[in-house]
Amino acid sequence: MPEAAPQNGEGEGASADSAAFSRAVQDAIDQKTKPLGALGRLEALAAQIAEVQQTLKPVAKRCRLTVFAADHGIAQAGVSAFPQEVTRQMLQNFLAGGAAANVMAKALGVEFALVDAGVAGTALRRPGLVSVRIGNGTRNSAKRSAMSAAQCRRALREGHAIGGELGFDAACFGEMGIGNTSSASLVAAKLLGLPVGHLTGRGTGLDDDGLARKRRILEAAAARTPAELDPESALREYGGFETVMLAGAMMGAAEAGKLILVDGFIATVSALAAQRLMPDVARHLVFAHRSAEPGHGLVLGAMDAEPLLDLQLRLGEGTGALLAWPLVQAAAAMLRDMASFSSAGVSEKS
Amino acid sequence: MPEAAPQNGEGEGASADSAAFSRAVQDAIDQKTKPLGALGRLEALAAQIAEVQQTLKPVAKRCRLTVFAADHGIAQAGVSAFPQEVTRQMLQNFLAGGAAANVMAKALGVEFALVDAGVAGTALRRPGLVSVRIGNGTRNSAKRSAMSAAQCRRALREGHAIGGELGFDAACFGEMGIGNTSSASLVAAKLLGLPVGHLTGRGTGLDDDGLARKRRILEAAAARTPAELDPESALREYGGFETVMLAGAMMGAAEAGKLILVDGFIATVSALAAQRLMPDVARHLVFAHRSAEPGHGLVLGAMDAEPLLDLQLRLGEGTGALLAWPLVQAAAAMLRDMASFSSAGVSEKS
Repeated sequence: MPEAAPQNGEGEGASADSAAFSRAVQDAIDQKTKPLGALGRLEALAAQIAEVQQTLKPVAKRCRLTVFAADHGIAQAGVSAFPQEVTRQMLQNFLAGGAAANVMAKALGVEFALVDAGVAGTALRRPGLVSVRIGNGTRNSAKRSAMSAAQCRRALREGHAIGGELGFDAACFGEMGIGNTSSASLVAAKLLGLPVGHLTGRGTGLDDDGLARKRRILEAAAARTPAELDPESALREYGGFETVMLAGAMMGAAEAGKLILVDGFIATVSALAAQRLMPDVARHLVFAHRSAEPGHGLVLGAMDAEPLLDLQLRLGEGTGALLAWPLVQAAAAMLRDMASFSSAGVSEKS
Repeated sequence: MPEAAPQNGEGEGASADSAAFSRAVQDAIDQKTKPLGALGRLEALAAQIAEVQQTLKPVAKRCRLTVFAADHGIAQAGVSAFPQEVTRQMLQNFLAGGAAANVMAKALGVEFALVDAGVAGTALRRPGLVSVRIGNGTRNSAKRSAMSAAQCRRALREGHAIGGELGFDAACFGEMGIGNTSSASLVAAKLLGLPVGHLTGRGTGLDDDGLARKRRILEAAAARTPAELDPESALREYGGFETVMLAGAMMGAAEAGKLILVDGFIATVSALAAQRLMPDVARHLVFAHRSAEPGHGLVLGAMDAEPLLDLQLRLGEGTGALLAWPLVQAAAAMLRDMASFSSAGVSEKS
């Protein structure tokens, strides 16, 4: 695991440079041929991209979606509307190009990669599948730690390597794993010191009885440990191989200078853990969308985040993150390529 | 002007076919490998695209943004923060590729077209500029009709021809014209029978004094005519050459079977007029974004429309419409290309 990087340059000189750069970015945006502030949130997004890339001519050409898949022991307790074998079936669906993430990535010009982080059953060996199996599914976190400390560290490290792969301006990260909404609710509860009931929703579509059952199981699981845990403990006790790897990937992507497009509830919980482990991650995060899963609002609030989109998505797989990529492309193009009042000979406000 | 087309097929047989097709669309969406409804508003968007194209395999490959530019007599009364010559300067900025609409269209893979609908001054003749000048700017609608009945009909007809050009699955329409927020406020007030003050905002950035002055001018202009007008009268009395042409273009695009991505306040007012003139336009409209201009909410409410995006944009030029194009692409790809539970061998909800 890398050490946390400093939030900005070091010392007073670097901080003055940083403030001067931020002013130059805002001046460049304000001089574009449009009324002041008229591109709303795209302007703040453009400024963030410029800060991450440290240039007034930011580039948003290549983006990759990496989907991490794994199984969860807690699924056997009956927390999901879908049976556990769906994780493996969906892995095959991703490989065949038939899942939402595949077709949406293709439609939006985003490259697609797939990681088996620990799907239950024998390992699949197939072209296009990166096999980094941390285990054969996690243990049931209602009864014991979901994974060992060594597994947790390995998942962070392997994720970090994948997130840090070069050649991309931005990264979307997605997840697939039956039971992982429950896992994320527990991790979030322990990171925020909140009762897990506040963060428990219907996931992929539980009915009222299913939701009540899930809430009982998660409350019992949460009762095993103190109300608040440090990030590595929370991930080890309740995380999934795919979501811990996702947190590691965000740290790797941040170190590699990429923008990170944050998907829904589960990916946001991984982002919260990643940011706790490495504060510099924060300035790389673009919150893509507000999920219909009710716990998402609490986690976003704790991170002071206002997502770009609200389309009532609750699928995961990185699908919401994908939809924010064109906004990043548009914002970067605005700053990089738009004319200024003076270059275009357009009169300013009278 | 074409006659209004019937809303659906004719007679009971057609209506039963239409209901059966809608059920087939919803079934196809529900059978995709995702929890029921998990793609939220993208699912409703996919259904709309399928209905417009009358196919379960909709296509969203080619989109064109057409920006219509013209000048407004009412600008001379002092309703805008920018001087009138900015319309002409922006026409040249569009031709040079330096405006927000140019760079965002390019970033999002949308073709760009530009129409001089009546910019004040001598006509520009330049490659890439379609010159369909209805007049040398409109008259000052605070004192008399903005245009003649013949000009209004010609603008609708010429717009219709441009909107109906073939080869595109979807159309974005944008506008540029100093004073056209005022013009749109007056048209909307007369279409909805509301006091124009309810629809008056800061446009490109008026201060408090400017806003008060604009409100007085618009109230005087509105007092010239009855509280409610039919669409052609509202357009003739208060419209702009670019916004009337835009309304005609929406009718042409609807007749040609295209999706229409509706930009902000001004384009939505043109859409309201188009829909009043030709009710079948309605099912082609995809409301792209909620503008920061306060009158937009009133017009959207009257059309029972909930836009896809809310990014606090208030630029026009079709920039908000452009940002919804990737959502259309993703929604169409979902319906066209995603596997079903049965085709992918994925277990359904237990």
